[in-house]
Amino acid sequence: MTSRKTPLDATLDPADPSGWASLRATLHEAADRLLDHVRDQREIPVWQEMPDADAARITSLIGSEGAGVAEAWRALEEHVLPFGVGNVHPRFMGWVNGAGTPGGLVASLAEAAINANVGGRNSGAARVERAVLDWAKRAFRFPESASGILTSGTSMATVIALAAARQALADWDVETEGLGTEGARFRVYASGPTHSCVESALRLLGLGRRALRRIDTDGRGHIDLGVLRERIAEDRAAGLRPLAVVGNAGTVDVGAIDDLAGVADVCDEEGVWFHVDGAFGALAILSERLRPRLAGIERADSIAFDFHKWMHVTYDCGCVLVRNETHHRAAFRSRPEYLEGQRSGLAAGEPWFCDYGPELSRGFRALRVWFLLAEHGEDDVSRAIEGSVERAEYLAARVDREASLERLAPADLNIVCFRVVPRPGEDGDALNAEVVAEVQKRGIAAPSTTRLGGTLAIRCCLMNHRATLEDMDVTVDGILHVAEDLRSARGSPRVSP
Amino acid sequence: MTSRKTPLDATLDPADPSGWASLRATLHEAADRLLDHVRDQREIPVWQEMPDADAARITSLIGSEGAGVAEAWRALEEHVLPFGVGNVHPRFMGWVNGAGTPGGLVASLAEAAINANVGGRNSGAARVERAVLDWAKRAFRFPESASGILTSGTSMATVIALAAARQALADWDVETEGLGTEGARFRVYASGPTHSCVESALRLLGLGRRALRRIDTDGRGHIDLGVLRERIAEDRAAGLRPLAVVGNAGTVDVGAIDDLAGVADVCDEEGVWFHVDGAFGALAILSERLRPRLAGIERADSIAFDFHKWMHVTYDCGCVLVRNETHHRAAFRSRPEYLEGQRSGLAAGEPWFCDYGPELSRGFRALRVWFLLAEHGEDDVSRAIEGSVERAEYLAARVDREASLERLAPADLNIVCFRVVPRPGEDGDALNAEVVAEVQKRGIAAPSTTRLGGTLAIRCCLMNHRATLEDMDVTVDGILHVAEDLRSARGSPRVSP
Repeated sequence: MTSRKTPLDATLDPADPSGWASLRATLHEAADRLLDHVRDQREIPVWQEMPDADAARITSLIGSEGAGVAEAWRALEEHVLPFGVGNVHPRFMGWVNGAGTPGGLVASLAEAAINANVGGRNSGAARVERAVLDWAKRAFRFPESASGILTSGTSMATVIALAAARQALADWDVETEGLGTEGARFRVYASGPTHSCVESALRLLGLGRRALRRIDTDGRGHIDLGVLRERIAEDRAAGLRPLAVVGNAGTVDVGAIDDLAGVADVCDEEGVWFHVDGAFGALAILSERLRPRLAGIERADSIAFDFHKWMHVTYDCGCVLVRNETHHRAAFRSRPEYLEGQRSGLAAGEPWFCDYGPELSRGFRALRVWFLLAEHGEDDVSRAIEGSVERAEYLAARVDREASLERLAPADLNIVCFRVVPRPGEDGDALNAEVVAEVQKRGIAAPSTTRLGGTLAIRCCLMNHRATLEDMDVTVDGILHVAEDLRSARGSPRVSP
Repeated sequence: MTSRKTPLDATLDPADPSGWASLRATLHEAADRLLDHVRDQREIPVWQEMPDADAARITSLIGSEGAGVAEAWRALEEHVLPFGVGNVHPRFMGWVNGAGTPGGLVASLAEAAINANVGGRNSGAARVERAVLDWAKRAFRFPESASGILTSGTSMATVIALAAARQALADWDVETEGLGTEGARFRVYASGPTHSCVESALRLLGLGRRALRRIDTDGRGHIDLGVLRERIAEDRAAGLRPLAVVGNAGTVDVGAIDDLAGVADVCDEEGVWFHVDGAFGALAILSERLRPRLAGIERADSIAFDFHKWMHVTYDCGCVLVRNETHHRAAFRSRPEYLEGQRSGLAAGEPWFCDYGPELSRGFRALRVWFLLAEHGEDDVSRAIEGSVERAEYLAARVDREASLERLAPADLNIVCFRVVPRPGEDGDALNAEVVAEVQKRGIAAPSTTRLGGTLAIRCCLMNHRATLEDMDVTVDGILHVAEDLRSARGSPRVSP
């Protein structure tokens, strides 16, 4: 396929109309095949491991000579497409992954053709992102004056939120001077099951793991406000500087929602930043049924959440909202001369998103959010969210009816944690880990695992808008069946428990 | 379009085969229109501002009810598509933006259908990313044992690289303890024109702006190694801790490449981290002609660079490579219990990319890099890079022949900086800023501006693989024409200079 082009005519576009025509044919072929792939998920295994031979082929295809677009597509179709993470499939229940939508293919195609860097400049892309942020501010009843930015996900959103908190609470010029001795005294408070992204953000920001104070929870996994108050008082007495409290809108293990209004009260009293980790749960705000559980979220100083989870925007796409735009901007603004804003033309247009986060290059992910909302509307998204909660309720009830299964946590939202009850002499953790791996390998379903009070749990996170009640039964049946198979293979006694 | 779905049947997929058929029709229509959009760029203005009416329509389309996929696409086509940043057009020469490729549409479509979160887990997506990183390591002659991760761009890559440097050079447990008093002494060295992303990374990492020591440059914009050595010695004498030196592989203002082997020597002698900011220039490594200018880059401890710039991968897509995997991983690893790796199944597979950067949710951008390389091969990419350097040489020569233009910097690589020579009494900076804005607004071409030694320059960054030598002439003619028009409008005398 190699043409001996000179540098001056070495465009990466097709060289002539027939080249454009074959590229067009490949694009249509890919569109058909990829749409079928999404539509027909139920007919393929949830997950299959990529064989080494396919990985080798992938590697061998990138070298000095190109294969052309048709051949590259065929290789993608054959060697990459079958080996996804599984989250598009209706029986994927692992971790907290959105399933995507077929309409998302249209949005991603447009995103690629527009190919905008939305770090700054005066473009329609920046205006679409502002429209999405304005919508999000309204959804969370944040003031119009609040700021925000789309991110790869809640991990980055948390980094940005806590950098804004640091800027707000430092009584010195922390952007110039750095943390210094005083900054080393900052402490952040969050319940035990709070996601590791908070600790990771504190490490990145130079505060270290020890800056995070893990606060005990009550029986339902909610932060204990009394203990929180005590801990803050102790730290103040020891000369430390309470910086922020993180409230959870859906913990990753069991989906617990902290008493956000209670956390807001503590933050008001103490004059510390109130951050909400709403990675998946915050979007429950769209549902009339679920919204009351998030009461208090509208008082947060910052909210981090993902569009690629419960809203099924194509990966990756998260968001941070910050109530006080001044602190947000002060934590990041640093435009160099070559990016100097101008009164008009391409270099005009405020705000520039590079002033609100660490990325100067950033794609047009806002288009995916906008498209999904334009296509489906809030109401359908809200119903899809409620549907996954109803499926969790159904699954929990089914688990409770099975004598050989036991639930390990309340299913307050959309996550059901349980295990196969070990028989005398069995290692329950090993058994359940093996059951999950085997259910995945057989392509039946893809739950994940977590540890609750030291015990390994099978964790089913119901998120997928494609799933049905029947999928819940297929999953439970599969788990029971696989457990018996594993026991037989080991020669364990098939006694009734 | 609203169906009164119950939550349990509220999927975001089409409800029936006819729904799938219309979605398919929209996808094909979009594919045709978007491919035309890329192909026919030369026939439309480089850039046009989005009118407020279109912005208002965009906003009004996201509400409680969805419009359906066909209507959402039509709105996208009418109100978003015409108002990009301009970088797809052959006469976009602003900032440092890649142009994308039409083959990239196939890759993005597949990325959306696969919809992988490549933060971790055992998937083909992770293996594609590893293949791309292995390719990059070979290109830069990094050891096989080196690590890396794809990022949104060089800004995030720089944060990751400097976090790894911090981890490597701290003689205490900086991940647990944070920077503390010792960490506050870290200093990083880089030439004056070094990109602001280095300063931004240091702020984010808690070191503050003052941790960056700007080192003088020689007449061609290269870091002065003598001054660098002196500055490090002074800082050591003052009890500070030199952490890293940043070498430039293409400064953003004029495209200067530091003496990277010289910087490597200083770093070896001083025992500090050698980071290369190769945002756009590092990929010159693919060209036999340009490669010698990067001599020394293979000795770096870390390299940050972008695939979306000189390689034209669809936005966003950057990369960081780290020579010593141990430090890289130690700076980020923090997997919580629900992500505990398993021996087999979906939760197996090493490495997990969330252990090498701050993102747990991260899309499958590796597919775009892989696809571009599979389609075109290194040789065509390399020739396209060389072509843009040849166009810069042509443009510089044309500018030098025009009496009313003057060059303001050497055009060492692919960036040409010049200005319209002001006439007596004219404010040269104001004139040139206005010329650039007007050339953009008329849709003729999109150069940007920068300041060189305090003087505002018209900056043409030649990157676009679609551009021709004729585009260079059209741009210069347009600039000369617009300057005269602006002078006429002001009543300035049309004297020959």
